[in-house]
Amino acid sequence: MKAAIVGATGYGGIELIRILHNHPKIEGIKVFSSSQEGKTMAESYPHVTDIVELTLGEIQPERLNEHDVVFLSTPPGVSAEWTEHLSSKTKIIDLSGDLRLNHPETYTAWYQRESAPEALLQKAVYGLTEWHKEEIKSAQILSNPGCYPTAALLGAIPVAQKNAIETSELIIDAKTGTTGAGRSPSAMTHFSEMNDNFKVYKVNEHKHTPEIEQELENWTNKKAPVTFTPHLVPMTRGIMATMYAPLQSGWNKNDIEELYYKAYKDHPFVRIREDHTFPFTKEVYGTNYCDIGFTVDERTGRLTIVSVIDNLMKGASGQAIQNMNVMFGYPEKTGLDFIPIYP
Amino acid sequence: MKAAIVGATGYGGIELIRILHNHPKIEGIKVFSSSQEGKTMAESYPHVTDIVELTLGEIQPERLNEHDVVFLSTPPGVSAEWTEHLSSKTKIIDLSGDLRLNHPETYTAWYQRESAPEALLQKAVYGLTEWHKEEIKSAQILSNPGCYPTAALLGAIPVAQKNAIETSELIIDAKTGTTGAGRSPSAMTHFSEMNDNFKVYKVNEHKHTPEIEQELENWTNKKAPVTFTPHLVPMTRGIMATMYAPLQSGWNKNDIEELYYKAYKDHPFVRIREDHTFPFTKEVYGTNYCDIGFTVDERTGRLTIVSVIDNLMKGASGQAIQNMNVMFGYPEKTGLDFIPIYP
Amino acid sequence: MKAAIVGATGYGGIELIRILHNHPKIEGIKVFSSSQEGKTMAESYPHVTDIVELTLGEIQPERLNEHDVVFLSTPPGVSAEWTEHLSSKTKIIDLSGDLRLNHPETYTAWYQRESAPEALLQKAVYGLTEWHKEEIKSAQILSNPGCYPTAALLGAIPVAQKNAIETSELIIDAKTGTTGAGRSPSAMTHFSEMNDNFKVYKVNEHKHTPEIEQELENWTNKKAPVTFTPHLVPMTRGIMATMYAPLQSGWNKNDIEELYYKAYKDHPFVRIREDHTFPFTKEVYGTNYCDIGFTVDERTGRLTIVSVIDNLMKGASGQAIQNMNVMFGYPEKTGLDFIPIYP
Amino acid sequence: MKAAIVGATGYGGIELIRILHNHPKIEGIKVFSSSQEGKTMAESYPHVTDIVELTLGEIQPERLNEHDVVFLSTPPGVSAEWTEHLSSKTKIIDLSGDLRLNHPETYTAWYQRESAPEALLQKAVYGLTEWHKEEIKSAQILSNPGCYPTAALLGAIPVAQKNAIETSELIIDAKTGTTGAGRSPSAMTHFSEMNDNFKVYKVNEHKHTPEIEQELENWTNKKAPVTFTPHLVPMTRGIMATMYAPLQSGWNKNDIEELYYKAYKDHPFVRIREDHTFPFTKEVYGTNYCDIGFTVDERTGRLTIVSVIDNLMKGASGQAIQNMNVMFGYPEKTGLDFIPIYP
Repeated sequence: MKAAIVGATGYGGIELIRILHNHPKIEGIKVFSSSQEGKTMAESYPHVTDIVELTLGEIQPERLNEHDVVFLSTPPGVSAEWTEHLSSKTKIIDLSGDLRLNHPETYTAWYQRESAPEALLQKAVYGLTEWHKEEIKSAQILSNPGCYPTAALLGAIPVAQKNAIETSELIIDAKTGTTGAGRSPSAMTHFSEMNDNFKVYKVNEHKHTPEIEQELENWTNKKAPVTFTPHLVPMTRGIMATMYAPLQSGWNKNDIEELYYKAYKDHPFVRIREDHTFPFTKEVYGTNYCDIGFTVDERTGRLTIVSVIDNLMKGASGQAIQNMNVMFGYPEKTGLDFIPIYP
Repeated sequence: MKAAIVGATGYGGIELIRILHNHPKIEGIKVFSSSQEGKTMAESYPHVTDIVELTLGEIQPERLNEHDVVFLSTPPGVSAEWTEHLSSKTKIIDLSGDLRLNHPETYTAWYQRESAPEALLQKAVYGLTEWHKEEIKSAQILSNPGCYPTAALLGAIPVAQKNAIETSELIIDAKTGTTGAGRSPSAMTHFSEMNDNFKVYKVNEHKHTPEIEQELENWTNKKAPVTFTPHLVPMTRGIMATMYAPLQSGWNKNDIEELYYKAYKDHPFVRIREDHTFPFTKEVYGTNYCDIGFTVDERTGRLTIVSVIDNLMKGASGQAIQNMNVMFGYPEKTGLDFIPIYP
Repeated sequence: MKAAIVGATGYGGIELIRILHNHPKIEGIKVFSSSQEGKTMAESYPHVTDIVELTLGEIQPERLNEHDVVFLSTPPGVSAEWTEHLSSKTKIIDLSGDLRLNHPETYTAWYQRESAPEALLQKAVYGLTEWHKEEIKSAQILSNPGCYPTAALLGAIPVAQKNAIETSELIIDAKTGTTGAGRSPSAMTHFSEMNDNFKVYKVNEHKHTPEIEQELENWTNKKAPVTFTPHLVPMTRGIMATMYAPLQSGWNKNDIEELYYKAYKDHPFVRIREDHTFPFTKEVYGTNYCDIGFTVDERTGRLTIVSVIDNLMKGASGQAIQNMNVMFGYPEKTGLDFIPIYP
Repeated sequence: MKAAIVGATGYGGIELIRILHNHPKIEGIKVFSSSQEGKTMAESYPHVTDIVELTLGEIQPERLNEHDVVFLSTPPGVSAEWTEHLSSKTKIIDLSGDLRLNHPETYTAWYQRESAPEALLQKAVYGLTEWHKEEIKSAQILSNPGCYPTAALLGAIPVAQKNAIETSELIIDAKTGTTGAGRSPSAMTHFSEMNDNFKVYKVNEHKHTPEIEQELENWTNKKAPVTFTPHLVPMTRGIMATMYAPLQSGWNKNDIEELYYKAYKDHPFVRIREDHTFPFTKEVYGTNYCDIGFTVDERTGRLTIVSVIDNLMKGASGQAIQNMNVMFGYPEKTGLDFIPIYP
């Protein structure tokens, strides 16, 4: 099987290469870039010297169409355009946010740019693997979820779907490592200003908010805004979403535990911690796992959910390959069966 | 003026020394320790070599009573005992949690040890300076607030007091640097397991919870449990409390802004950021400032408040000295007028 | 093939498990501990929950002898004792320092404890894979090198062996991440005192000094003391050894480059950077690579060599498994063919 | 006394402001910038909100000449030009590298740009305070030393000057926090690529090399190249220079100790550690101290010197103000008498 990676010099791209390099079903990888054509991967990333012997090629439809699967790890706006040029025989996995929202006007409102055509949005399957596995199996165009939505949704859907909580009351306080901000240097992620510092940003304004809301609506049939606050942690990888909502009447701690175990019993990448035991971000470092802990506070009647992922893995490239496995009929864990690097 | 520091080898103690050393009203400092008597401060902390020429003495009531003020920076249980031995002519500032709660049974429930005598609890003045200044002026025994409560309360009281939010709906998602856990090495704060990691702990069980609730009740006359979740950030100093509550009807963004400006206009250590501008922890590093940002989300009707402090300064030793200044009639900023170290 | 890991709860042990878990020749792993018998690995390391279903057993010779290979990842003194109890049909890979030095008196002088019997020291093969491959093939007892010696020796042997430098003039300035100090919490590696800090320790006194000297003597036939200074970097993994020595007359930059390429052309885990290009520690993160850069300063006539490894991989568990591969006749990269995790 | 800061938005500039703000001899500060005129300091640095009420002005000779002292914290080439426009009644302290080297050709060779006029180079006094105090007293133009040279020279001059070591044999392995690289974001100092990483750069090519050599020549009357290797540590502030040289015959450990104590007995900012006790970078954090440790290795006959400073303080702005104090006849510690922030 042949795979192409467009936008291979970003963190999503190099992480795809790290995994696909050892994926037993992949025979050939080609890498493409709009800005660094002609350079080798090792020039951009010295850590792959002598391991990855790939040169970045110019992006052209005919070249991409030679592949069984094309990963688009590109900035906003690019994948919407390229997806239309590609053959329907090639499966496309889009890691950008371009195709995640169903409604063009929502996209425009939050991304502040023109949306992909509505038909394309409708065609793209949302790749939160654990919750859309059947549609993913037959998807030609897959829209890979955002990092924050993956952490938040895997923790929230099981209880929202069963009405153990009201979506409108959900508060998501999320914390990410800096790789979520990409490879371009910025004042925000300059080491001298990020080290020994903790930051909050885009309060109530982050693009991942409507993605979370859309997917919660999908599983609850209720449209409701959520509160979502992202923070930046002085660490490289990892997301923790700490979520809060009043537990609806009639539910107790044991019911919640059962909900989680049932929801994920057939899903190898979601690990449920025992009641009142919580995961740390490093416990999924470098892997596709999502670890979830929760507790019910008898004093306030609130449910607290803690969900952690590696933002570059389950939050991006790992889930993309998990989706590829499903799309091509391979076991879900193929090529992704790592133990977290710890410490 | 003469000051004694009991428990001078902890982080709270060494931070007191850092500030008192240059405090214009302090003529002499003595340091005491129950475990390191006879050692010099420089043996315990080489960074004060040639600057602080103090030897740790044995703790004895008569020696402490020679001072105008005694700071107790001691583990749970110690200050409750010592406070009773000291002369009423000596002012006591207790940085431990022993005297913060008014009701012995609450203390016992959360600290899981016997409380100080109720009379002592009643006598101790709670030292959240900006909100108890008048009582602090005449206090003989001052109970210095916890680090988390300081960050949370300075952000929440102005809106809770005026019923712009309901305390029972308040969610406090707090993040601290590791110095909050003290100087004793532990698995939790072992560098190899804390670096590049983000942790959550004591969910719904942290001792600072009843302290926050008690003080909110004090300003609202309503008893209500709050949700409080502490997290550990891979950084040395700093606390950010991100707080959420539905805005009560009749209130808008401008009202809230006015509430904050009014509440703190005469308080030099609280800085209010413009609407929708948020502080980062490093922006108060090494100082006694508390910076507060906030915003109202029109979509959800919720108020989000972000409050940051340096946990060893406004969250401990800085506020202790601010209180000392008030207790002895000095201007509040005496000895505390630093610019944050940045970056 | 069956593997036993003794001392499985240390960082060396958990790293062995991470690799062996996916090693294609390993069918069964058993784990042993002297202090945590009866506990599961997941209790000690939550990140292996649902992945590694192993319970720590009591250390007993008969149980260890059921395995083809036994890894000893134990504190000083333990492996010297256990090695003697084990059957000669079981191959032993000792990750402790007990069997690295040939002379008991040198061990005693530097480790300040009694040495293993001299016969055992003589029998143990020193496992710097690239330089002892032939002996390793037939070794029954393998002594795995220290982390610092691995980084230093892989960089220094090629030029010392050919007399391009004099060993007696070699200065090794080495920097390590904190995992080199193990899992036991200490003041030195307490997060609050290690973060945003850079430390030097055991100047001229580190136990790895005689190991480096012994191996250099082995390849040069000259006994000479070296200068070795270890430092602690606020990072989790990684070692950089920056080495200095005057280039002997008759040698130039191109000669040196040729020496390195020749020395390692058949060794897949050593990567030589182009002249005057230097590796960073993170470029080998999580892998068994050793990356080496060098340059000659025309002004001073000195050669500077920079060698980096992941201290838990090529500096410990990775090299141990590389050695296992050689001992059992498998290709050297079996189970170790990872791309570094970056960033 | 009135002070002007040109280039106030860099890290050197904001650190000058932090200290001068509380300096008892400074009555007024004005700030200037070539790129951010009209902005307030608080817009550039929110941490000075409500504390520093200064607006960045346009750089003009007549405006600068109104000040008693002008600090030039500017990029290469700027101060060389401005210095010539300023009145001789205004004292100038240049924090850039423009005026540090005495010979234009050396400057051009290492900085790869045209030098300031030779007359200006001759006029500027090199501000390594402890070693040039007399000349500094009467200096009109002061060239403030580089960060690395300050750490290296304070450690090396005492022994080089007395011929206890040969300068030509000196090896300086230096490590810095990232603020040494300034405020402009770059790939090198992007948090995601610097965190949990240790880097070496500009091996044998750093601009501070000739500065170190020139000053050593000044005190030894011997011209000799030194080996200097800078490294980047994942921390914000701090430099450690670990230095190596063979001890010349006739010298022993006690002699060296005496040399250091004598050299610095009247210099309050240099602290000598007891033999074989070494400082860590954080032990001088936020202060103007330089802490020095050393040891002699009997086995190799080499002297190892470890010198640490805060690169933004003794390595830049702190030393600049120390020099200002000397130039204006104030006690050296005026405004600089801080205890390090620890931890």
